[in-house]
Amino acid sequence: MLEKLRKEVHAANLMLPQHGLVIFTWGNVSAIDRNANLVVIKPSGVDYADTRPENMVVVDLKGQTVEGDLKPSSDTLTHLELYRSFPNIGAVAHTHSRCATIFAQNQKPIPPYGTTHADYFHGPVPCLRPLTDREVASDYELNTGKVIARDHPDYEGIPGCLVASHGPFTWGRSALEAAHNAAVLEEIAAMALFCPNAPLVSKALLDKHYSRKHGPNASYGQKTPPK
Amino acid sequence: MLEKLRKEVHAANLMLPQHGLVIFTWGNVSAIDRNANLVVIKPSGVDYADTRPENMVVVDLKGQTVEGDLKPSSDTLTHLELYRSFPNIGAVAHTHSRCATIFAQNQKPIPPYGTTHADYFHGPVPCLRPLTDREVASDYELNTGKVIARDHPDYEGIPGCLVASHGPFTWGRSALEAAHNAAVLEEIAAMALFCPNAPLVSKALLDKHYSRKHGPNASYGQKTPPK
Amino acid sequence: MLEKLRKEVHAANLMLPQHGLVIFTWGNVSAIDRNANLVVIKPSGVDYADTRPENMVVVDLKGQTVEGDLKPSSDTLTHLELYRSFPNIGAVAHTHSRCATIFAQNQKPIPPYGTTHADYFHGPVPCLRPLTDREVASDYELNTGKVIARDHPDYEGIPGCLVASHGPFTWGRSALEAAHNAAVLEEIAAMALFCPNAPLVSKALLDKHYSRKHGPNASYGQKTPPK
Amino acid sequence: MLEKLRKEVHAANLMLPQHGLVIFTWGNVSAIDRNANLVVIKPSGVDYADTRPENMVVVDLKGQTVEGDLKPSSDTLTHLELYRSFPNIGAVAHTHSRCATIFAQNQKPIPPYGTTHADYFHGPVPCLRPLTDREVASDYELNTGKVIARDHPDYEGIPGCLVASHGPFTWGRSALEAAHNAAVLEEIAAMALFCPNAPLVSKALLDKHYSRKHGPNASYGQKTPPK
Repeated sequence: MLEKLRKEVHAANLMLPQHGLVIFTWGNVSAIDRNANLVVIKPSGVDYADTRPENMVVVDLKGQTVEGDLKPSSDTLTHLELYRSFPNIGAVAHTHSRCATIFAQNQKPIPPYGTTHADYFHGPVPCLRPLTDREVASDYELNTGKVIARDHPDYEGIPGCLVASHGPFTWGRSALEAAHNAAVLEEIAAMALFCPNAPLVSKALLDKHYSRKHGPNASYGQKTPPK
Repeated sequence: MLEKLRKEVHAANLMLPQHGLVIFTWGNVSAIDRNANLVVIKPSGVDYADTRPENMVVVDLKGQTVEGDLKPSSDTLTHLELYRSFPNIGAVAHTHSRCATIFAQNQKPIPPYGTTHADYFHGPVPCLRPLTDREVASDYELNTGKVIARDHPDYEGIPGCLVASHGPFTWGRSALEAAHNAAVLEEIAAMALFCPNAPLVSKALLDKHYSRKHGPNASYGQKTPPK
Repeated sequence: MLEKLRKEVHAANLMLPQHGLVIFTWGNVSAIDRNANLVVIKPSGVDYADTRPENMVVVDLKGQTVEGDLKPSSDTLTHLELYRSFPNIGAVAHTHSRCATIFAQNQKPIPPYGTTHADYFHGPVPCLRPLTDREVASDYELNTGKVIARDHPDYEGIPGCLVASHGPFTWGRSALEAAHNAAVLEEIAAMALFCPNAPLVSKALLDKHYSRKHGPNASYGQKTPPK
Repeated sequence: MLEKLRKEVHAANLMLPQHGLVIFTWGNVSAIDRNANLVVIKPSGVDYADTRPENMVVVDLKGQTVEGDLKPSSDTLTHLELYRSFPNIGAVAHTHSRCATIFAQNQKPIPPYGTTHADYFHGPVPCLRPLTDREVASDYELNTGKVIARDHPDYEGIPGCLVASHGPFTWGRSALEAAHNAAVLEEIAAMALFCPNAPLVSKALLDKHYSRKHGPNASYGQKTPPK
């Protein structure tokens, strides 16, 4: 089932090591079929080289495995909470990419210092509050999703966040877009790390660059891909 | 038309990911045929792997597409302003390379700290002023070029600059030279990032290294390439 | 003899350059057969590309070569002391990986700043005391192992350490796990380098992530590998 | 002539881009035949991919080309001064590798902070004084060599140095060793960059590690290479 979505999720998972965002098995991408309310996600702890579209795991929104012999990612319940809370997203990516994780460990947001940031994130990328000991003790992965869902200021304009003492989550309309945003977040984090006292990009420039790539008047890119 | 220039521009665009200066579609190189007053430039938002000499876009100096099915780079009007203002350049490159962009975000020039810099840039690489909100609101890409053209102190001796809160632009006689200078700028930015209190290279050494590689008495390299 | 262990040790040694942890011959992995009390280790100063399972060296716990024409790693006596002192380890890895070595040179432990650390190390990765001049003067390699063995606070929960003014050692149940932990240690060191004032991960989160991957209730990964 | 030395010099030049020490044509390796008093060196400004053993240039100790159609490296006169002044070296390498060049631009030596340094350099790697304007104005490349030769404290124990506002030079018995030392120097510079307040390695440990790899009692490596 969901053969096309399995292929996309598999390809998006492979983007993580290709872009240097993960070593070993340190990240996962999922995508949702909104009609079927089913989610395709990477199996837990499997090397990217050993994954295939066929061994992606299909789960329902309660986390029950619907198809697949392998256990789904240990972060599955976080992904599912994001699908329930953010109705306009189609995919989620999670990594421990180096510079974004540094910001998460420092519990600092990534301010918009330039147009690289503005092209993708229409404001600061927030770092959400640390989970309480109680939130960690039971339903940890679910609570991680709840903290993101409750406190993220603008999930449509800012398709990502940092979880304190943990690392980045990003999302998008498709699995490839969620993984793409994970790579972008790492790059703007790497730049921001060396801009501790930089002026923020002006509101005018933030809006200009964001709107060149997003919304009905977007001018960037092609209507149809090159032949 | 302009088959030879298309090939050169295509090859120069491929240099950007090869040298780690861009991810995804984050940069573009163009070149001008000064006799025809036509510019060949990368199409907007197309992956480097999907570009070919045939899908480079030919535009005139007003930005009208003369040949090509794809839309030209969203930065085309910036490139064109540089061709109009800097009569002795043949090509322009734009990237969001990490360390040069850090300097642009910090709105700081790159001082000449050593001979690596002096071999290519005969003085500090300037960071130009941020655009005003009015300059951003209308004719943004054109105004980006105008700020560079008006305020750059020496476009022939210093073939590049930083646009505040944005990133680097470089240029050269040919597309390959413009892309080459983009890689050099990234490298000297990476070095300068860790030289916050370094002494400047002496004027004598700046002149010596620059003149070893430039001008009628240049001694570096070969008169004719190796067989 | 020990053909299977030779293959594993060889493969684990190759992981060091593959993960960018060493240049030239700057690291070594060994593993022990606890029944035979024999250790298989990389030969000294041989390029990874020139190693084969057959030229790994077999030594006994006194350091005498039991099989092999080549001299064993110059760090062999350190490895052997760890096998004698840490009865539940099966393998040891040593590198000069850049960021872990920076912490070793600074003589600072790596505090647990996030879940990346907590997934593998159940507390700070210690930096042990510098050896005295007397400890350096005679039995240097043995004494390096003795300092680790005497002062490491929890070798089972924290499978690695930093030797002051030297670099990292890691261990594990198998050669591949010891090398895996060397790559993890480098990654958390790289992150910690830019977290000088970060809050520590909470005890609850440290325990949660560590126990997701270790112990009888570990939930991460698959019971059986994917087919 | 000098076919074997040409091959070695060519291979050593290729090591520079392989180890990420140079981009474009930013480095050169030479070696001397002490019997013939002839030096084989990379041609100036030729891409590494276009070099072959046959187009290496042979010069005498006065810098006259003895064999070869191409011009020798622009740094040739620096190399020659080192051969005249340091009778026990067989080869010289020059790069603009990033971290070593940062130290050169900061005009700071690289102190010995650990055993990685001590394995190769028996003390601080010196940064020599900037050249005077007069020294730059005439015989610049020769004077660069003279400053190194006059002020280097121990060319046999410390096979490399930094030239102020310029970059690193290293040397060795063979071309491959000189290039090897260039890679080591870059690695210890990268580590030292993040050790601004680290304690120096003890004299005992500096001597111990240096003597494990150098001198009549060296114990590191194999007497004969593996079969």
